[in-house]
Amino acid sequence: MNAAQYQQWSGERLAQVEECLAQWVPADAPAGLGDAMRYGVLDGGKRLRALLVLAAAEAVGAHQTPAGRDAMWRAAAAVELIHAYSLVHDDMPCMDNDVLRRGKPTVHVKYGEAQAMLAGDAMQALAFEVLTPDEDPEAMPAALQARLSRLLARASGQSGMAGGQAIDLASVGKGLDEATLRDMHRRKTGALLRASVQMGAACAAVPEQATSWQALTAYGEAMGLAFQIVDDVLDATQSAETLGKTAGKDADANKPTYVSLLGLNQARAEADRLLDQALLALQGSGLPAQSLKALQALALRIVQREH
Amino acid sequence: MNAAQYQQWSGERLAQVEECLAQWVPADAPAGLGDAMRYGVLDGGKRLRALLVLAAAEAVGAHQTPAGRDAMWRAAAAVELIHAYSLVHDDMPCMDNDVLRRGKPTVHVKYGEAQAMLAGDAMQALAFEVLTPDEDPEAMPAALQARLSRLLARASGQSGMAGGQAIDLASVGKGLDEATLRDMHRRKTGALLRASVQMGAACAAVPEQATSWQALTAYGEAMGLAFQIVDDVLDATQSAETLGKTAGKDADANKPTYVSLLGLNQARAEADRLLDQALLALQGSGLPAQSLKALQALALRIVQREH
Repeated sequence: MNAAQYQQWSGERLAQVEECLAQWVPADAPAGLGDAMRYGVLDGGKRLRALLVLAAAEAVGAHQTPAGRDAMWRAAAAVELIHAYSLVHDDMPCMDNDVLRRGKPTVHVKYGEAQAMLAGDAMQALAFEVLTPDEDPEAMPAALQARLSRLLARASGQSGMAGGQAIDLASVGKGLDEATLRDMHRRKTGALLRASVQMGAACAAVPEQATSWQALTAYGEAMGLAFQIVDDVLDATQSAETLGKTAGKDADANKPTYVSLLGLNQARAEADRLLDQALLALQGSGLPAQSLKALQALALRIVQREH
Repeated sequence: MNAAQYQQWSGERLAQVEECLAQWVPADAPAGLGDAMRYGVLDGGKRLRALLVLAAAEAVGAHQTPAGRDAMWRAAAAVELIHAYSLVHDDMPCMDNDVLRRGKPTVHVKYGEAQAMLAGDAMQALAFEVLTPDEDPEAMPAALQARLSRLLARASGQSGMAGGQAIDLASVGKGLDEATLRDMHRRKTGALLRASVQMGAACAAVPEQATSWQALTAYGEAMGLAFQIVDDVLDATQSAETLGKTAGKDADANKPTYVSLLGLNQARAEADRLLDQALLALQGSGLPAQSLKALQALALRIVQREH
């Protein structure tokens, strides 16, 4: 997939993800809650998690049945809702105290802290609501609803994202060895990125082969870690203007990062190593080469992005 | 069910709910997160939502099969996790700024605001994790996992609890008509109480009769509203010592309540009317009289409690 093909592939899917979110995140939630939720999740971000869901789902042929299509768009919206809620809460004064996100005021700056906390809470609930639609012959079957909810809950909670944030919180101003840093990253961002790939893979109409499940999981695991390393590298090297958020915050807060621990060059080398590992996993997946192109393009983009 | 019988019925179930929560809320979540989660949910509260799940589940015979038993304990733990997370977030400085809960310092007082927010977030995720165990012949089937997750997500999010809290937030210091107050209560506390009854009813091994589902839903709806009215009455009339939390806060904050809107006597009469309505619904459920005794006893307790 060359750059133009990737632009087309991702452009079509990003537009559809936006449409799904605009439809499922209610404008009419009471007392301004809907406005805060929509502000927090619509029109923003790279939608990397959604694209990973969709690329993995297409790799296993999920898009070929109505139930698979329903499942993959719901899964894509759900992971974006979880990611967006985590940013809303993370930006609050008691956490990172960030006022700028994607070049706009953060949710608590615009709507107040209480509404931001509630909006995040409601976005998490909505993610699971989106994954569990009423039973319908055209919609994803209940067994898949349960499986996607299971994958998402485990990736979001104490053993995943929330646990990683707790390690991050406890690490401010303290030394952190490489093993703990790696554990933190694996949970904080890695778990949801890996789950995105797994949720896509689970959308296949036929039970997946153990080989392809393991390969896609390995791909997701490597990409989860690589994403955070590249984030650390960009935080240390890019301007706020390019990133659309406050730059250099981690260094300012004396937070340990891959860059502070390994140095810039070794951190970059580690990301490249993980890219190779992910691409190798895809090659061993047993899936048709043609169906893997989007996952390959995404991996390159995750590691070689500049913001 | 007389008082002694109710004590025995509820005592046995409360002990088991505590055991389930102690088992499922991890002690070893990283960086103190598990401690904050356990502090927020263990050893505390009336566990009314869990008891409603269990009473409804037993009314429809869910306890007679291994899968039904697995489902009902998981549902009971999940609703308590959602309730507990909402209290943790609600108590935070940007919301109610409460320092006392169940006679103990609130989670953010003990663990800090950031950890409290994360613990609440992780508790919400854990609720859905508890509802979606790995597939196992002895565990609840996937279709039931999906259904319970659906009921819980809808009751927790913008159309339920979080939406009600947003209305509550927006109402401080403002007038609120009875329709809006009722809508707020129906979402804020009513939705989760009603969902507790419905989740218990859904645990039946055989598909439930439409009549009994509707009756139990009506019971849950009436109890959800009655609970909040009684809460308002107690807040206006009881001491902090009796309640185990700061009393008179709503009046101090100039928040509209049933008592401020209707007066004490009419609020009490409304709660009694809802009790009658709930008991009448049970009578029309078509379920055996013997199996309804716990639900009847719970209804009396909800309306006639003194703290």
